[in-house]
Amino acid sequence: MVNNYSYQQLYNFSKNIFLKIGCCDANAATAAKVLLSADLRGVDSHGIARLTGYVRLWEVKRINANPAIQIVHETPSTAVIDGDKGLGLVVAPAAMQVAIDKARNVGTGWVSVKNSNHFGIAGYHAMMALDNDMIGIAMTNASALVAPTFSVERLLGTNPIAVAIPAGNELPFVADFATTTAANGKLEILQRKNLDTPGGWVQTKEGEPSNRADEVKNGGALLPLGGDKDHGSHKGYMLGSVVDIFSAILSGANYGPWVPPFPAYIPMPENLPGEGIGHFFGAMRIDAFRPAPDFKLHMDKWIQRFRSAKTIKTETKMIIPGDPEREMERERMNNGIPLLQAVVDDLAILGAKYNLRIE
Amino acid sequence: MVNNYSYQQLYNFSKNIFLKIGCCDANAATAAKVLLSADLRGVDSHGIARLTGYVRLWEVKRINANPAIQIVHETPSTAVIDGDKGLGLVVAPAAMQVAIDKARNVGTGWVSVKNSNHFGIAGYHAMMALDNDMIGIAMTNASALVAPTFSVERLLGTNPIAVAIPAGNELPFVADFATTTAANGKLEILQRKNLDTPGGWVQTKEGEPSNRADEVKNGGALLPLGGDKDHGSHKGYMLGSVVDIFSAILSGANYGPWVPPFPAYIPMPENLPGEGIGHFFGAMRIDAFRPAPDFKLHMDKWIQRFRSAKTIKTETKMIIPGDPEREMERERMNNGIPLLQAVVDDLAILGAKYNLRIE
Repeated sequence: MVNNYSYQQLYNFSKNIFLKIGCCDANAATAAKVLLSADLRGVDSHGIARLTGYVRLWEVKRINANPAIQIVHETPSTAVIDGDKGLGLVVAPAAMQVAIDKARNVGTGWVSVKNSNHFGIAGYHAMMALDNDMIGIAMTNASALVAPTFSVERLLGTNPIAVAIPAGNELPFVADFATTTAANGKLEILQRKNLDTPGGWVQTKEGEPSNRADEVKNGGALLPLGGDKDHGSHKGYMLGSVVDIFSAILSGANYGPWVPPFPAYIPMPENLPGEGIGHFFGAMRIDAFRPAPDFKLHMDKWIQRFRSAKTIKTETKMIIPGDPEREMERERMNNGIPLLQAVVDDLAILGAKYNLRIE
Repeated sequence: MVNNYSYQQLYNFSKNIFLKIGCCDANAATAAKVLLSADLRGVDSHGIARLTGYVRLWEVKRINANPAIQIVHETPSTAVIDGDKGLGLVVAPAAMQVAIDKARNVGTGWVSVKNSNHFGIAGYHAMMALDNDMIGIAMTNASALVAPTFSVERLLGTNPIAVAIPAGNELPFVADFATTTAANGKLEILQRKNLDTPGGWVQTKEGEPSNRADEVKNGGALLPLGGDKDHGSHKGYMLGSVVDIFSAILSGANYGPWVPPFPAYIPMPENLPGEGIGHFFGAMRIDAFRPAPDFKLHMDKWIQRFRSAKTIKTETKMIIPGDPEREMERERMNNGIPLLQAVVDDLAILGAKYNLRIE
């Protein structure tokens, strides 16, 4: 059975749910837009499938629908923001805007955020910089599902990094990736299809190599980008660690194994060293380095050269970072967003509770 | 045969060589210190083994021994520096110092550099921030040895990233890694031992998977961190690309396949779009975010938690980024730096040419 919905249908439903839990109109609109940007770009695990999860966090009072998002410390190029337990979907764009404003003034802006929660896809926030002729950077920590190199224990989240870079005639370069070999969403797809994972994605709860897509549910762990030491997993571990430190130790959020879990039914870690989860944002004005037209000319040349590279036999075209998500966005904006039956059922229950329907 | 030399012996020889090619005393000292820091930290491929290579670049006039290193554009938090074809070993610390000075004034400093060349190990430059209670970041592009995901062609360098983060009672966190599965130096070690590489390190010149340690010499390529698409090589490709763009397109250096090669005998690429190779440096003052003592307290807690994680059966201790290099530095500072016979021979020839000996 195909469950296909238009962007507008799902946006309206999501926005109305956020209104029902008490968000103001502007925040509900922002939250719905950020959430749905994941569905449009094909990152289904971070989109409307999580809507019920956000509501559950609000129900257990771990999300504040009307946060007083505040700068608690700043310099001309930096700020720490307290998200006041607001939806990460709302806190993150506000923090990225502060980074952009600072970049306008002094060339770059860097903002570390505490007391937030899941912010949707990192790419959305990084891309806010593009219209300002700025490079945008966004990262976040997340609850611990990843075992660093040699560790049996899960100490890091999938800790994604996004970097958005403007071009001229070409479309922008947009990198957005988890610092693990594979994002959790890819494991979920394999689980539904009852397929094994390639090597280097997961390990068992004893730390043995595994190919089971449900290993994380059994107490196992995701692996850092690289998979094992021979294949550079210490580099993925270092990247995930840098994301954790910039997001949480600079700001005062929780880090490592203490990052609060997204599912409201999982108990909170004990003896928390900080507040909520942490994010980190950066904006760099292109013309703080060189005239934007010069930069864009060379960015176009870079993209054209990489796009025209000779490919290996099994492939017909090169990927420029941002291409796959843009193609998906065009396709889904035109032809609708397909939802799994389980997601449709979940949204129906949520809608019934709040007297709303997808229509 | 063991060829073991003290740090001071190799430092003196290197500094004297730099003096002979016309560097001033301060620049010769800096260049020798940066170069030898690679030998001390165990990154033998980037240390004194390259000394002859730098001299050859000077001989063919691709290195200027007395550069006028200049800021060509700046804002309160950014600068572009023209390295005037100086030794990267000298240009890079000068640029990092500008980043640190800007961070002192406005919280952070970000410097992109053009018209430079090989800068030694990235970690040295990033670590300059530590004594200033700042986080340091250093990256550089390099000549193209890496085939992006799906590409047969080599379009990126090993493009390393270093991030140095101060702690309190614990030693600093220092990540320093090539954005490939394995650095070129590791391939050289396997070649000398006549051993194969693990999968995911290299491909043939037709783009087929390979385990030959000499594949790059045969026209093959290094692979981005991840190895292949199934194992996340597009993420390594994105990281290497970001390093290339920040280092060269922000500054006006060469990028992608146009980055000048280190060996002076390899012809320069044609139709260069920029000047020299590019670097990118960042410094962030800890107390531009929160009081440094608070940050360090939590950084210590982070390090202690990760260090005490339960390890997989085959390993007895966790790695904290920076540990292996520090252990090597202590060992080599106390017991000397071992050099391969080929390196000793090479340095003897160089010394004879300039009337110098290691003594």
